[in-house]
Amino acid sequence: MRIDHIAIAVNDVNMALENYKKVLRIDKIDFEEVPTEKVKVVMLNLEDTRLELLEPMDDTSPISKFLKDRGEGIHHIAITADEIESDVRNAIEKGMRFLGDIRSGSYGRKITFIHPKSLNGVLVEFCQAPPK
Amino acid sequence: MRIDHIAIAVNDVNMALENYKKVLRIDKIDFEEVPTEKVKVVMLNLEDTRLELLEPMDDTSPISKFLKDRGEGIHHIAITADEIESDVRNAIEKGMRFLGDIRSGSYGRKITFIHPKSLNGVLVEFCQAPPK
Repeated sequence: MRIDHIAIAVNDVNMALENYKKVLRIDKIDFEEVPTEKVKVVMLNLEDTRLELLEPMDDTSPISKFLKDRGEGIHHIAITADEIESDVRNAIEKGMRFLGDIRSGSYGRKITFIHPKSLNGVLVEFCQAPPK
Repeated sequence: MRIDHIAIAVNDVNMALENYKKVLRIDKIDFEEVPTEKVKVVMLNLEDTRLELLEPMDDTSPISKFLKDRGEGIHHIAITADEIESDVRNAIEKGMRFLGDIRSGSYGRKITFIHPKSLNGVLVEFCQAPPK
């Protein structure tokens, strides 16, 4: 298993990007809007993982609620599950609580989330990329 | 640049480890106590990065304060700076604020921290491993 990305909720992805560029050597930067999740995404590709900056597109975005409650900061970490169906089934059998079923995320990935109460306050996305 | 680890503040590293084992396939688990930082550390080695569970050894630990203020959750992310002196100097010239000078951390690494106000609410450790 690998860390796919670390997602950071921010008020303005472009201003945040300027800050991160002051510190990081970034191999590649991708911009995306995900209307279904109501977020603007800037993906910063580092050597072996990625930082995902998330800005809400409007007040109904879940990221908007997070920013109001907690301010800017790390929103979740995403872990690549190579066999997502069986990995999720095993985790549920062991008592892990999930937020919703396995569904389609950005870049054609299958995703679901583990409740932060199951993992010591950390919201974890489980994801699996489509075969290349 | 790479993500070296993601550090998670928890009340009890052994209980947290049991939770993470329900979800993750972990390649190797290391246990360490760092009396200078007053933390117990359990390092979960994944394919290309690591999760670091941190438990305070007493009430004066900085992790103890974090847990009281915010509860369990992600405490910081650590990024490997290959040329830490010049990387820090460049970041300071661009206005980044650091928490203390470059110093020795666990495993003989050189470390320092960037203030969360400089990076949109994210506490970032800059670290460089000793040459192999």
